[in-house]
Amino acid sequence: MQRKVSQINTEKGMTVNELVKEMSGSGVMGAGSLARSVDILESMIKDKECRVFFGQAGAMVPGGMRNILIDMIESGWIHVFVTTGATLTHDIVESLGIGHYQGSPHEDDEKLHKKGLDRMYDSYMPDSAYPKMEDFLNQAIAGMETGKTSIKDFLQDIGEKIKGPSILASCARKKIPVFCPALADSGLGIQAWGMVRKKKIEVSAFDDLNDIIDISWTAKKKGVFYVGGGVPKNFIQQAMQFSRQADYAVQITTDRPEPGGSSGAPLREGISWGKLGAKSMHADLFCDATIALPIIHAALKERL
Amino acid sequence: MQRKVSQINTEKGMTVNELVKEMSGSGVMGAGSLARSVDILESMIKDKECRVFFGQAGAMVPGGMRNILIDMIESGWIHVFVTTGATLTHDIVESLGIGHYQGSPHEDDEKLHKKGLDRMYDSYMPDSAYPKMEDFLNQAIAGMETGKTSIKDFLQDIGEKIKGPSILASCARKKIPVFCPALADSGLGIQAWGMVRKKKIEVSAFDDLNDIIDISWTAKKKGVFYVGGGVPKNFIQQAMQFSRQADYAVQITTDRPEPGGSSGAPLREGISWGKLGAKSMHADLFCDATIALPIIHAALKERL
Amino acid sequence: MQRKVSQINTEKGMTVNELVKEMSGSGVMGAGSLARSVDILESMIKDKECRVFFGQAGAMVPGGMRNILIDMIESGWIHVFVTTGATLTHDIVESLGIGHYQGSPHEDDEKLHKKGLDRMYDSYMPDSAYPKMEDFLNQAIAGMETGKTSIKDFLQDIGEKIKGPSILASCARKKIPVFCPALADSGLGIQAWGMVRKKKIEVSAFDDLNDIIDISWTAKKKGVFYVGGGVPKNFIQQAMQFSRQADYAVQITTDRPEPGGSSGAPLREGISWGKLGAKSMHADLFCDATIALPIIHAALKERL
Amino acid sequence: MQRKVSQINTEKGMTVNELVKEMSGSGVMGAGSLARSVDILESMIKDKECRVFFGQAGAMVPGGMRNILIDMIESGWIHVFVTTGATLTHDIVESLGIGHYQGSPHEDDEKLHKKGLDRMYDSYMPDSAYPKMEDFLNQAIAGMETGKTSIKDFLQDIGEKIKGPSILASCARKKIPVFCPALADSGLGIQAWGMVRKKKIEVSAFDDLNDIIDISWTAKKKGVFYVGGGVPKNFIQQAMQFSRQADYAVQITTDRPEPGGSSGAPLREGISWGKLGAKSMHADLFCDATIALPIIHAALKERL
Repeated sequence: MQRKVSQINTEKGMTVNELVKEMSGSGVMGAGSLARSVDILESMIKDKECRVFFGQAGAMVPGGMRNILIDMIESGWIHVFVTTGATLTHDIVESLGIGHYQGSPHEDDEKLHKKGLDRMYDSYMPDSAYPKMEDFLNQAIAGMETGKTSIKDFLQDIGEKIKGPSILASCARKKIPVFCPALADSGLGIQAWGMVRKKKIEVSAFDDLNDIIDISWTAKKKGVFYVGGGVPKNFIQQAMQFSRQADYAVQITTDRPEPGGSSGAPLREGISWGKLGAKSMHADLFCDATIALPIIHAALKERL
Repeated sequence: MQRKVSQINTEKGMTVNELVKEMSGSGVMGAGSLARSVDILESMIKDKECRVFFGQAGAMVPGGMRNILIDMIESGWIHVFVTTGATLTHDIVESLGIGHYQGSPHEDDEKLHKKGLDRMYDSYMPDSAYPKMEDFLNQAIAGMETGKTSIKDFLQDIGEKIKGPSILASCARKKIPVFCPALADSGLGIQAWGMVRKKKIEVSAFDDLNDIIDISWTAKKKGVFYVGGGVPKNFIQQAMQFSRQADYAVQITTDRPEPGGSSGAPLREGISWGKLGAKSMHADLFCDATIALPIIHAALKERL
Repeated sequence: MQRKVSQINTEKGMTVNELVKEMSGSGVMGAGSLARSVDILESMIKDKECRVFFGQAGAMVPGGMRNILIDMIESGWIHVFVTTGATLTHDIVESLGIGHYQGSPHEDDEKLHKKGLDRMYDSYMPDSAYPKMEDFLNQAIAGMETGKTSIKDFLQDIGEKIKGPSILASCARKKIPVFCPALADSGLGIQAWGMVRKKKIEVSAFDDLNDIIDISWTAKKKGVFYVGGGVPKNFIQQAMQFSRQADYAVQITTDRPEPGGSSGAPLREGISWGKLGAKSMHADLFCDATIALPIIHAALKERL
Repeated sequence: MQRKVSQINTEKGMTVNELVKEMSGSGVMGAGSLARSVDILESMIKDKECRVFFGQAGAMVPGGMRNILIDMIESGWIHVFVTTGATLTHDIVESLGIGHYQGSPHEDDEKLHKKGLDRMYDSYMPDSAYPKMEDFLNQAIAGMETGKTSIKDFLQDIGEKIKGPSILASCARKKIPVFCPALADSGLGIQAWGMVRKKKIEVSAFDDLNDIIDISWTAKKKGVFYVGGGVPKNFIQQAMQFSRQADYAVQITTDRPEPGGSSGAPLREGISWGKLGAKSMHADLFCDATIALPIIHAALKERL
């Protein structure tokens, strides 16, 4: 039996979760997908047997999402954090008090270059971030032990040295593994590279596979939450494929599915690969993540 | 001097407007655009000298946005309503108690056809809507006067016959002109066509131009608000071009700008045409409207 | 049995059709869709019993597609032409020797406005087009008869007055009906409006429905070809729905399906409505039309 | 002085390059960007002082682009190849005679899973690829030396073992460095991981930075060509940033710029970072790569 689309009502002073509940009644299109995403995330977080794998790509820290990510970690909603070197770079830069600046997507990029401002759509990072980060990393890496390590363990060590609230610091403190397969592909990676070489620290390109697949194998149930695609999504997806499929899944992306890449692939494609269970709860949300994530987060805070 | 991106904080039980205010502090990307859209809409609605032209295309009623549109009309936020025949058809269908149903974008369309369900992404309209609408229109048009009329006046007459809350009924009662240049391109248009022919009612393809340009010329200030593109956006844009440019503008669309069409064109392109003032406040919001509009509406209700 | 993806080979000096044939061997993703589109168009054009309904929206003339559209008409590939007032305006402007200019999407729109250039992404139309078009229309409409007419017949009359190659002139000469339900929503419409009023010509908003549905009812077989969405696509789709479903269908669009509007709807959605046959040949092509259409056209010329 | 948009003409039997030249006359929108892309690529390849960095992400081999990529390498157009582990996996799978299959984006993924077919939009890879690749890798890695290596050197060794035409084999034979920072994030990576561990081969996460930045520093001039975004684009972009900026740039992507990520960022954003020269030739092409790349390739073959 079909359910009717319930027309959404808003009220003066309604909470974010009350609005999401209204969207849930509607149940269709973007609003319906957003509401379903919140429901699925609520289920996966409440499920005591479920380990939540969070994959994040894109300019979320320059886009104002840092405190939300930190809160998700601190609230215990996430058990595995997979990200890009860029996000970790932006996180460290914020922790060093430099931060990002409001700009315009139409600004003259040559002028910005002369001013030492690096543009990400309409957000700028000052070049002065680099020497500050270098100082921090030099100190952080100075105390590390010589020898073999994994990217995850290296990032745990870095995280322990960060003062104040930070994504990496929160993960480090809560022993949440941070995977970043393409760490070399970032400002953080490029600075760390020279330092680890001097310290004769060998960072393995492969060893993290052991850990993520192990976590994936041993978890009774699993939820995946993707904000953006790229390596973070794919790295979690393959951990599912080479262990057991996920039970819950939510993804937020604006990428197109037609070109066939992993970033734009709808979640249900993962069923064919054995990455996602055929009976799993899953929702694809086509939305800019800087809009969707705060709504989802505020709604979940009200529910959990 | 650049302003820093303020990282967004969410609180348990925060209202929609409180969240939008947090996004405003961030000021960038989708979240920043959403917050700026609310600010601009607040300004244009509060500005007593400003006439608000609202253009809407796309499956907003099947997508659950009907009550929000009605509330915007009833609250006096809108002075000119430009829409598609499809939206008016869906509005009438809802007022006749038929409504739309939750479905799936992956459903077998041949099966749906056999069941008499017409699909719009993941929302279905039952074919039984057509005979019901025909009965209603026969009665509504029976009482109309023979002779020349405009689409706007024809829709005013229809709106007066609708019982219960409805977009068209609210506009009719509040004497808000409803323009629908491509009315013939809809279920409503195709049914009305036979009936007006019998009644010897002549509906002019051009006469509404007089009214919309007149309203645009005489308004001291003007705001435009586009949800989707298509004819409704363009019809308002040209009314600005052939009178005076708009002072405030907000648009929500997911269309690409590269192919050069009006639907995907960023608002600032309108400055070159004289459709939008170079000093105007304006914001482009790249978001599914069924997500953005409820948030905008709830935030505005809290502010106004 | 599954067919293998054949890796595409290119050769020095290969023709466009030879390349499309290679894409056909691949059979997947964008290349596969493009090749399938050409195959279906070839079939619908070669099928003597098939009437081809062509719907076109978006800035195709400023985008350089005018001669291709003219050639499609002159080659007898199209039996019904449905378009926007904007395209007809651009067509007339080109026929008056004014044309469009290469620009940049990053240009300062205020400067363009001062120079009298109207921007469509990176193409400009000079404002001087308007008085020239006005002169032409004054002459063209001066000779028309007073009384009732349809948009189609009005455009036939205009087309007969255009000198030199033109979309409208070619359709007029070949008696191909041009439907433009939202003609009022264009520079052409706004100029014509004042002139027809003076001449006491009454242009009906509805009468074209009779013609398009009649053509659709009486055709033994039907093909639809959509370049962009908007009113042109929907007007043809509803003619199919209210007569009989199409046998062949190709659409080119970059719009997203998720918001549920007609423009971004995949063709197969039309099966649920009875707009498209469940056994029809159809292909959705996600591509900028200014790239896809020249390739399709050149390939078809080689085949037909 | 503005140049006029020249309406595109097609001829029966015209070559791909002749069509691209016509698009160049038009100079605007997608067609103009495609033509400009070919012009810039022609310039960068012909420039004897220029090193071409090619970055590729997405399902290009399942999408039929493998022979084109091989031909670009064999023709000497590319000096640095940066890619994903997925592309290398697909390349090896094709070289082992397994290949990919034509499918449908609407197929039931649970059925595909039971049949052992992994879906990428409408292309399938059979699961039987994995044991075949495992056999090949076991043999290939068996002969490698114990000790430290870089991802680039590891891939060179693998490439030397592949029989028949292949991306990796062609790069190996021509000593074109293949960088793949996230190699662990792929079927190839996950299989190689266990084997290198047994052989006590240590693959460094960072060492390739040395090589790519060195090539970038020592090149007199540089061109970048991105098909898709992700890590490959960003890894080249940062090599430019930390050495000297690029002189030529072309990118093909369908990702949106608004969310601020590197994949959807227009090339000119790179000017602010010092990744791209302010006076560089550059073009952004919004198109499915499986459509654009064969056209570009065929046109370039005719020119070079």
